[in-house]
Amino acid sequence: MSLPYLTEARAPLTREIEVINEHGEHETIQVPSERALTVYVDNRELVTLMTLGARPEWLVLGFLRNQRLVRGVEEVVSITVDWEVGAAAVKTRGGIERVEERTARRVVTTGCGQGSVFGDLMDEIDTIRLPHSVLTQAQLYGITSAIRLQESTYKSAGSVHGCALFRVKDSGPEMLLFVEDVGRHNAIDTIAGWMWLQEPSAMGGADKVFYTTGRLTSEMIIKSAQMGVPIVVSRSGITQMGHEVAQRLALCTIGRASSRHFICYSAPGRLQMQPELAGANPRATA
Amino acid sequence: MSLPYLTEARAPLTREIEVINEHGEHETIQVPSERALTVYVDNRELVTLMTLGARPEWLVLGFLRNQRLVRGVEEVVSITVDWEVGAAAVKTRGGIERVEERTARRVVTTGCGQGSVFGDLMDEIDTIRLPHSVLTQAQLYGITSAIRLQESTYKSAGSVHGCALFRVKDSGPEMLLFVEDVGRHNAIDTIAGWMWLQEPSAMGGADKVFYTTGRLTSEMIIKSAQMGVPIVVSRSGITQMGHEVAQRLALCTIGRASSRHFICYSAPGRLQMQPELAGANPRATA
Repeated sequence: MSLPYLTEARAPLTREIEVINEHGEHETIQVPSERALTVYVDNRELVTLMTLGARPEWLVLGFLRNQRLVRGVEEVVSITVDWEVGAAAVKTRGGIERVEERTARRVVTTGCGQGSVFGDLMDEIDTIRLPHSVLTQAQLYGITSAIRLQESTYKSAGSVHGCALFRVKDSGPEMLLFVEDVGRHNAIDTIAGWMWLQEPSAMGGADKVFYTTGRLTSEMIIKSAQMGVPIVVSRSGITQMGHEVAQRLALCTIGRASSRHFICYSAPGRLQMQPELAGANPRATA
Repeated sequence: MSLPYLTEARAPLTREIEVINEHGEHETIQVPSERALTVYVDNRELVTLMTLGARPEWLVLGFLRNQRLVRGVEEVVSITVDWEVGAAAVKTRGGIERVEERTARRVVTTGCGQGSVFGDLMDEIDTIRLPHSVLTQAQLYGITSAIRLQESTYKSAGSVHGCALFRVKDSGPEMLLFVEDVGRHNAIDTIAGWMWLQEPSAMGGADKVFYTTGRLTSEMIIKSAQMGVPIVVSRSGITQMGHEVAQRLALCTIGRASSRHFICYSAPGRLQMQPELAGANPRATA
């Protein structure tokens, strides 16, 4: 498989600003960077993404993947990001078919950040078959624990969403990639782009779990499903459409996930309960 | 001034779903509703918004206002929402000029929800002059206190953003409107729509403050400024572009606002500090 040529454009993830606190004191704090990145595909302007800028090439690749504008990584020749001009130039092998038509319909979706999904949200849902997989409660706790320990822009500057891809092994969950962005869709798209650059044989979904700090909205569920990942864990809750889509896909959604607490909203068959790990149950009678 | 005819389409704001918690127990919880609302302007499809559906007519009106597709409320003849088909039909007096061109450019922005701003984000910034206004620290605490007491879908179901418009009087802040939605841009757009339906003389910005549970992103700041409101308070933090835009507008942004704590990021001249109200300062030396 021939992989695209990618630049490695880097830029500072935070910036210092001066503020005043409730005691009237001047302080210096960090805020996350936020930059406009205009994506040009074969010299044609496609979209402007607002991003933290951690991994712009993976973001653009994943955006094209998750918007289903490109069917395979081999269709992309190169992605050249230049922060001086805030542009990402994508060169494709054969162009994007019917790009006009396919980017014409706008759905302004619920999620943070990159809310627009070009085309019909539900387009491909019924063609997706997610692999069999089971996550144990102990492995789930391993995931929330790894997230808690992760160094992050969120800890230093707040105001960003995080996403992670885990491989679940008998020895415990392994964090393959952790990405933050000002919009959480950028974060999951960046993971999607990175996955396309790995050996396809290593990127099957049966042993994978997505983690997101953001809400479980329909687009997040659909993006996970499109990448074949059948379990999504979130620190936040779920929306109605997220729930409906997850049920239709038999995708396991777990929300409000903190150290010991969580709620499983859908496909509980994929979660092997070990309630003895949850500690004392306040409702249990003696 | 002739106001548009609006339907009053209502729909349930929450729905019950069955879940399993960490003790392996089945529970019934509420999740926020989330519906697709496709907006047609003079029989032409414009956009599909994903919304909680509390006030769809105000949302559509505010969307048209904040996207600057309609210059005045008198240009809108009627907005007819039908949840059966998930459609909002807008009739305008003279049509939207150059609608093709003006909705052609996509900027996928950082904020939650309705991320797309058609056209150039910064378009009109430099033409905006915000009125003189001062908020005291006591009034700010009155705002965070009113938000804390507000009954909400967030309290019953989580996973929604809230927005409020306050009028600040000597007797304390008065909450004029509180709106929640699955996307926080929908919430602020709903307020913008509602404001257009009030007496213009009552909707000057000098005595107004916006509150949002979401982050202070550039789009939130710009939307507030477009409505003439020079002070925005948030439970969350700020992004770099939010900060830059707020400084350029001399719009006062206050974040991390909880019972006593807050950070003022920009235009501190609009905030009258009363540090004695903040309680003991852990940094103060005896």
